Amino acid sequence: MAEAADTRGPKLDRAALLARDQADPLAALRDAFDLPADVLYLDGNSLGALPRRALAIAQRVLQDEWRGGLIRSWNDAGWFSLPRRLGDKIARLIGAEAGEVVVTDSTSVNLFKVLNAALQLRAGRKTIVSERENFPTDLYMAEGLAQMRGQGHVLHLVDAPAQLEAAISGDCAVLMLTHVNYRSGRMHDMARITGLAHEKGALVVWDLAHSAGAVPLDLNACAADFAVGCTYKYLNGGPGAPAFVFAARRWQALSEQPLSGWWGHAAPFAFDATYRPDDGIGRFLCGSAPILSMAVAEAGIDLMLEATMERVRAKSIILGETFIALVRQECAGLGLELASPADPAMRGSQVSLRHDQGYAIMQALVARGVIGDYREPGILRFGFAPSYLRHVDIWDAVAALKDVMLTHEWDQPKYRQRRAVT
Amino acid sequence: MAEAADTRGPKLDRAALLARDQADPLAALRDAFDLPADVLYLDGNSLGALPRRALAIAQRVLQDEWRGGLIRSWNDAGWFSLPRRLGDKIARLIGAEAGEVVVTDSTSVNLFKVLNAALQLRAGRKTIVSERENFPTDLYMAEGLAQMRGQGHVLHLVDAPAQLEAAISGDCAVLMLTHVNYRSGRMHDMARITGLAHEKGALVVWDLAHSAGAVPLDLNACAADFAVGCTYKYLNGGPGAPAFVFAARRWQALSEQPLSGWWGHAAPFAFDATYRPDDGIGRFLCGSAPILSMAVAEAGIDLMLEATMERVRAKSIILGETFIALVRQECAGLGLELASPADPAMRGSQVSLRHDQGYAIMQALVARGVIGDYREPGILRFGFAPSYLRHVDIWDAVAALKDVMLTHEWDQPKYRQRRAVT
Repeated sequence: MAEAADTRGPKLDRAALLARDQADPLAALRDAFDLPADVLYLDGNSLGALPRRALAIAQRVLQDEWRGGLIRSWNDAGWFSLPRRLGDKIARLIGAEAGEVVVTDSTSVNLFKVLNAALQLRAGRKTIVSERENFPTDLYMAEGLAQMRGQGHVLHLVDAPAQLEAAISGDCAVLMLTHVNYRSGRMHDMARITGLAHEKGALVVWDLAHSAGAVPLDLNACAADFAVGCTYKYLNGGPGAPAFVFAARRWQALSEQPLSGWWGHAAPFAFDATYRPDDGIGRFLCGSAPILSMAVAEAGIDLMLEATMERVRAKSIILGETFIALVRQECAGLGLELASPADPAMRGSQVSLRHDQGYAIMQALVARGVIGDYREPGILRFGFAPSYLRHVDIWDAVAALKDVMLTHEWDQPKYRQRRAVT
Repeated sequence: MAEAADTRGPKLDRAALLARDQADPLAALRDAFDLPADVLYLDGNSLGALPRRALAIAQRVLQDEWRGGLIRSWNDAGWFSLPRRLGDKIARLIGAEAGEVVVTDSTSVNLFKVLNAALQLRAGRKTIVSERENFPTDLYMAEGLAQMRGQGHVLHLVDAPAQLEAAISGDCAVLMLTHVNYRSGRMHDMARITGLAHEKGALVVWDLAHSAGAVPLDLNACAADFAVGCTYKYLNGGPGAPAFVFAARRWQALSEQPLSGWWGHAAPFAFDATYRPDDGIGRFLCGSAPILSMAVAEAGIDLMLEATMERVRAKSIILGETFIALVRQECAGLGLELASPADPAMRGSQVSLRHDQGYAIMQALVARGVIGDYREPGILRFGFAPSYLRHVDIWDAVAALKDVMLTHEWDQPKYRQRRAVT
């Protein structure tokens, strides 16, 4: 991209993008979100935007259910069944069946549960295969789990996706992958890789953090074993909203789950002295769910069901391709490299650029209200949430980027100074 | 209590209790809560009432922070520091120091963390001592943890508190106790039992679910090692609000924590490939916190700091003693037995009664708006939250109980029919 401008198509201009918005079947969905007027939000891959319905849900939970119903709301308002009810909705977005998904805990805690179950199902094998570029917390959780089990499990990290196939040996118990890479947006072929692993007798744990609500998924068609994911990115569930966990029906009754809290018991309110796990997906529950955060998350999940993943994906690809084309067209020679796959079929709903001064550049963009985010080393991430992003936003974002680069606006101490959380 | 009426004091009447409300230093605090007019709420031990400030916090988080700040709010609105900030506040309620408590995950998940750390610190010893009457999920978690570790740990359950001392042998790694029993309200002497365990070289994990916000605690004065607790009972944090975990400073850097998610990393945003735990209490964090539920919980925690635990305890004892005296006075001969210690010094902030038809009796009370709850076998639980309960409420609740018993109002199919969640 640092080289000459792309010449493959007609030059894009702002009017063309406005015209695309006019024809966008998802355009009306933007009104379901409450976005600040002074912001171009390209960070839905980190925290999705606020669905307008969320406030009404919060008010209902606080005023009607908590205030009015008090303890009775565990039954009467369906609080106790919320993890399963939301799980069944998410199942429809990821190609799972009802009863294969629950919403509970955090992605990290859920990863611990399913990775442990998978290791137990492949006892005797000692290798967990993953990528060095996986989201660090996934690697940390695997590290912590392996150390705790104390059975000599090793984490084998490959440096590039092309090395995965060779790494899946007969000693591989579990292949643990994030479907869409958090930094590059690179997307794995879930069906193919799951098949490769199964051929070698290994199980696969998929992290769908950057996939759920971003790309169509068909877990059961891929014969997926286990998966985890979060609700606060493309599902617009709210900051830190509870995560989800998928276990294929065939594994559920066989899955050991050491975080064996009462919500996972076959009869939680019998208060038996001994743990007896739920027969199905319920055994992946543990303790009480944070109801307010969970209830509010339903607003975003519902909107994604209304959008349909097919329409979301079609628009996502156009937004990503437009972004890349515009960076090529407008920012040629400014030192920005594409850090995502150029092929949209291999990319999730984000495009990343690389620049040595990526951190400062992103701070300068954020100061202008163009919000993406930064990840080491030198990666500017731009996420595309098709349910609320307009085509013209892509033009305006690239125009701001171009201006920040041309003017060296980023080259100020206030933008170069690192902060703890980015 | 089934026997003759108590004759120890002058007969109580409703006017006397109204007079006590006039003189109650905590009376004004009731206005900080939003309670339905048609309810007498004696179940704050299961789910505390709604603080009026909670709605404003939810609105702020949704509209200002999520809608307006979007991803920037992790920094700008202090979301990322919320677990520590709320932990420091809870520390003041339980006799801990700043930096010894974080709010995170569920009580069950936190129990897994600290129980595992304690077992690791006492490697070689193989026994976890607890009570058969402990809250079942605590036993389930210990069971799941012991099974997962696969090192032959056994759970030794005593049938009565008097047997604890003998059970703490030289093989006891950890004594795991709930400070106030969920069913009977019986309270352990934390200083004495912790001392006994330490004499034998064992560590103690305290579950404060029914203690935090209910009784004064001084964990450090008791030389407590680890503790967990919930925020949704007497701390009025909201349904399923995140739990807390305490680790004495002397154990923090020595604690292994296998749920090693990025929030517990010494530098979460460095995205190192290898886990390096925070030096302090931060290592007990794991994944992203459900911010909305956590932020709202601050309202209840703040109110408890304003109330002061000393005033809360003084009123709690009066409410409990009044309840027992009134049941003796008004319900003599109606078959209700006291299932809590008669000595208030040995009791948390609840009183339990036992009756063979306890379930139906409680359903009939709830139908009248007198809300307590039921636990097997035959236990009617009445919790006293001094921050919003009036003395006269005790009179009215016992009057309703008496009426339900005298009229056999409970003896109807609609009240005898069990529901899944009680």
